[in-house]
Amino acid sequence: MITGPGLLFVVSGPSGAGKDTLVAALRGRRPSLRYSVSATTREPRPEEQAGEHYFFVSRQEFGRLRDGGGLLESREYNGNLYGTPRDYIERSLTEGYDVIMKPEVNGALAIRAAFPDAVLIFVVPDRFSNLRERLLARRTETNEEIARRLEIATREMKFIRQFDYIVVNEQDRLEQAVRDLEAILQAERFRIHRYPDDSIRRVESS
Amino acid sequence: MITGPGLLFVVSGPSGAGKDTLVAALRGRRPSLRYSVSATTREPRPEEQAGEHYFFVSRQEFGRLRDGGGLLESREYNGNLYGTPRDYIERSLTEGYDVIMKPEVNGALAIRAAFPDAVLIFVVPDRFSNLRERLLARRTETNEEIARRLEIATREMKFIRQFDYIVVNEQDRLEQAVRDLEAILQAERFRIHRYPDDSIRRVESS
Repeated sequence: MITGPGLLFVVSGPSGAGKDTLVAALRGRRPSLRYSVSATTREPRPEEQAGEHYFFVSRQEFGRLRDGGGLLESREYNGNLYGTPRDYIERSLTEGYDVIMKPEVNGALAIRAAFPDAVLIFVVPDRFSNLRERLLARRTETNEEIARRLEIATREMKFIRQFDYIVVNEQDRLEQAVRDLEAILQAERFRIHRYPDDSIRRVESS
Repeated sequence: MITGPGLLFVVSGPSGAGKDTLVAALRGRRPSLRYSVSATTREPRPEEQAGEHYFFVSRQEFGRLRDGGGLLESREYNGNLYGTPRDYIERSLTEGYDVIMKPEVNGALAIRAAFPDAVLIFVVPDRFSNLRERLLARRTETNEEIARRLEIATREMKFIRQFDYIVVNEQDRLEQAVRDLEAILQAERFRIHRYPDDSIRRVESS
């Protein structure tokens, strides 16, 4: 059996898509899956645990980490800094563990830029499908509001094309979405570009 | 839920890889999966059933089928003609059924050329891995024999890169290989390029 190093899975999508529940359920089913915790300079919310939801650091600490090459990527969002610690991911992947994370869309694209081998999965909530048709049909929005929403949709569509997969998280069908994600995690392992030339030469010397 | 039309899966690889057993087991687990039967001008072998293993046709019938646009692709191999009937595949895919087939490597590449959206899966038998190392170690082959085998391996390696996936069919682990194939069938459905722009616009109008 050919085993490469682990793979990095980035689960993102609009808020309300149910990423948190989905990733939690997936981690429950795959205990060997490692979760990458982001660093941020924003204040923790009451329910957030340091080291579990985020590493909460000062601006100074964040700067030191980043300038020392400790972050895979970093970005500013709504006045706060966010970054992906490099060490944990690199060590886990080298040891053969798969790693998962769930940044917002702009974070996902920053990670893709820093780590082209990452697998980007866009999760969409089913109840938001066909919104445009519904907006147009019910005629409660002004024409400007509809135009603005469609403009946002068009902009987001461009982001989606930079992802590898779309998973639809249908209401009351969480189990199905988790199985879809699991199939992606499993199948990506066998993609031809994951096999370096020397491993193929070995397989093919038959 | 966004559903596109069905997908075409092409399972190929060197003889001895266990493609037949693997595809039979997969079809047993996925009864909705349709199997594409090739047409050929060669004589049926004793155990072969017409319409199940091949459609056995005369050269004249083959020529009529091909010239009438009835074949997705056709090729000559060892003095016989082989071709993939177009109708059954196109009708099944349009109706939303996935289709599977298991041609030899040259057939798989011909199908890719005719149908770029097909998913190509290369099956290798585990017991052939590391053959080069074993050949070199045991030193029972002549240098010319080893060189010839390595030349074939190098040529086949170039074909492998045109496939999408490699699945290793380890001895006594058929179930695992079937599950790997199933994960590929499942995950391919969610790949971003399977979503036409209008379906993404619909999903994203949120």
